[in-house]
Amino acid sequence: MTSDVLVIGGGVVGLASAYHLKRLSPGLSVTLAEKGARLCSVNSGRSAALYRNLFLSKTSRDLAESSIIHYRSIAGAIALKGLGYLWTFSRDEWTLLRTEAVRLASLAQEVELLEGEALSAATAMAREPKGPYPAAGGAIAGRLCGALSAQALAAWYAERFSELGGLIVTGADITGFDLDNEGGSLPTRVVGAKDARGEYYEAGRYLVAGGCWSQDLLGPLGIASAVYPKKRQLFGFSVARPDLLYGQASYGTPALILPYAGIYLKPVPERYLAVAGMADELGRGIDLPYGPAAARPRAEEEYFRAYIEPALGAYFPSLAAAYPRGLELKQAWAGHYDYHWPDKNPVLERAHNVVWVAG
Amino acid sequence: MTSDVLVIGGGVVGLASAYHLKRLSPGLSVTLAEKGARLCSVNSGRSAALYRNLFLSKTSRDLAESSIIHYRSIAGAIALKGLGYLWTFSRDEWTLLRTEAVRLASLAQEVELLEGEALSAATAMAREPKGPYPAAGGAIAGRLCGALSAQALAAWYAERFSELGGLIVTGADITGFDLDNEGGSLPTRVVGAKDARGEYYEAGRYLVAGGCWSQDLLGPLGIASAVYPKKRQLFGFSVARPDLLYGQASYGTPALILPYAGIYLKPVPERYLAVAGMADELGRGIDLPYGPAAARPRAEEEYFRAYIEPALGAYFPSLAAAYPRGLELKQAWAGHYDYHWPDKNPVLERAHNVVWVAG
Repeated sequence: MTSDVLVIGGGVVGLASAYHLKRLSPGLSVTLAEKGARLCSVNSGRSAALYRNLFLSKTSRDLAESSIIHYRSIAGAIALKGLGYLWTFSRDEWTLLRTEAVRLASLAQEVELLEGEALSAATAMAREPKGPYPAAGGAIAGRLCGALSAQALAAWYAERFSELGGLIVTGADITGFDLDNEGGSLPTRVVGAKDARGEYYEAGRYLVAGGCWSQDLLGPLGIASAVYPKKRQLFGFSVARPDLLYGQASYGTPALILPYAGIYLKPVPERYLAVAGMADELGRGIDLPYGPAAARPRAEEEYFRAYIEPALGAYFPSLAAAYPRGLELKQAWAGHYDYHWPDKNPVLERAHNVVWVAG
Repeated sequence: MTSDVLVIGGGVVGLASAYHLKRLSPGLSVTLAEKGARLCSVNSGRSAALYRNLFLSKTSRDLAESSIIHYRSIAGAIALKGLGYLWTFSRDEWTLLRTEAVRLASLAQEVELLEGEALSAATAMAREPKGPYPAAGGAIAGRLCGALSAQALAAWYAERFSELGGLIVTGADITGFDLDNEGGSLPTRVVGAKDARGEYYEAGRYLVAGGCWSQDLLGPLGIASAVYPKKRQLFGFSVARPDLLYGQASYGTPALILPYAGIYLKPVPERYLAVAGMADELGRGIDLPYGPAAARPRAEEEYFRAYIEPALGAYFPSLAAAYPRGLELKQAWAGHYDYHWPDKNPVLERAHNVVWVAG
């Protein structure tokens, strides 16, 4: 199989890259190889599918805002919900961040700061949570942020990419690259890729969008992505009365990040659910060694009970009172973050004719 | 075993950190744990032991220049050789880099630029090498740079560190950390470390200086170092006539980086040897999965013959003519780089009470 560009990975990043490549350069032949039987079945499909424009870096903000314009233009097709986003910070963090937050609010679109009474009015969060949980000192609110269906977004990209003449191959698990290392000089380019079925793919450029597993492909080339697989767990629990979380909801029912360990809440009001996950940094290992062994991680209810539920109880005492025997879990799933230590922001890098990209 | 700081790793970085900690804060109790039976027996000891002050980042330059002042003050003890350093660039690279190089020459100490006739006069390099090897368009020369004995430097640090009251434990292969994750809240600090013999180390802070293997320890904590193990091979070969490499040696016999694949030459004039290695980026894999399996890599003569020797022949045609049957290898060894993709410069980062540092 021969093309100008081979895109490896059929999650949101790979599909969006493939679509925009064809859109901007219709003359390029582009093939996308997805290892699974279906698109968007791995980490994109197991994410919380939240999106935001709250970034301190201008590049990330520009990328996010242009994506949001695009999402809004196809809102119906991708189940877009403009929930808004309320990102709270502890008093200590707020002391450090407030100047940056003011700058961010002045630069990004539809962003405001909430402090004091305004923050209390926006949610039912306790002003002085009991236990080791820091109180919120302030929040950055983004009305442009929200949630969507990652699967529907992937399907949209796949369809348009195909309409533009792009080729999608599923069940194509790329296992390695060939280099042009003949004739005494060192290799300077990748000339082909093989999949597990023995199919061969030749291309002028290779775009690796394998998410946190990209290093499996890049490592043998001598390329370090600085992206690591970090387990992500999500738990959906009953909230028959959303006001227990969101009070009188002066700010609606936004996605909410608590000031403790990056616990985030995604409301799913039509099903009376909230989905919680967390981004704790110490003690939740990176899944080494790399490889498929850890590709289907398990959500651990004991993790929810030990760490997330007590924190939710401290921040939302009325919720804890309404569920004295514990929150009722309705669903739980796990995947991996593309964890980029240096800045936790999107990655786009190139070496020779190989590009890698992660969200 | 209890101390204020536990330093993990007895290579040059760990020993230098431990020594400077005790020097600057004599009141701190500092323990250094080295997994091997001897200090500096892993990657520090298998390096080319070159040092330089040629960095575009001010931080790296400041670090390097203060190290060099220190090295010069103990020159006899560490077999310091002020060879100088000649870092050549291809014509294409020089077009891009010249402005930066001029700035660097004006900022760093004892740095000059060599171009045209001056560059030709400095070495016996061909002006137009045959084959795929780019000609040099210019060079950055650093007279402060040179070589030393890594083992002697490590021994110097170890001795002074011990004199200052620091404790060194060899055969202490730290296998994991304990976290304070009790009582329903997430861990916020490391409280202890275990070694393979079952010894336990408690400390207030932990400094991980395990070189490219640091990720083995940091991964389970959820910390991504962005440092990867990349194989490094060094080959010592006969040069009975150094003028074949260095011509009339207007610049002496400096360490020399060729404009092709980062091949570097370290002269060892007293033994009529040159040591060559290279830093090719494509096709020489990162040694995944992490772990001790790859801890003792083999130097591959076939790699020298296939890639390094032909390049040396192209850049130094008189050398190739003097050894028509091939260069005579006298020694070959291999180790690993601490390969930090984002900038290839030293790393110093912190998460909670864990610091990691790599050279």
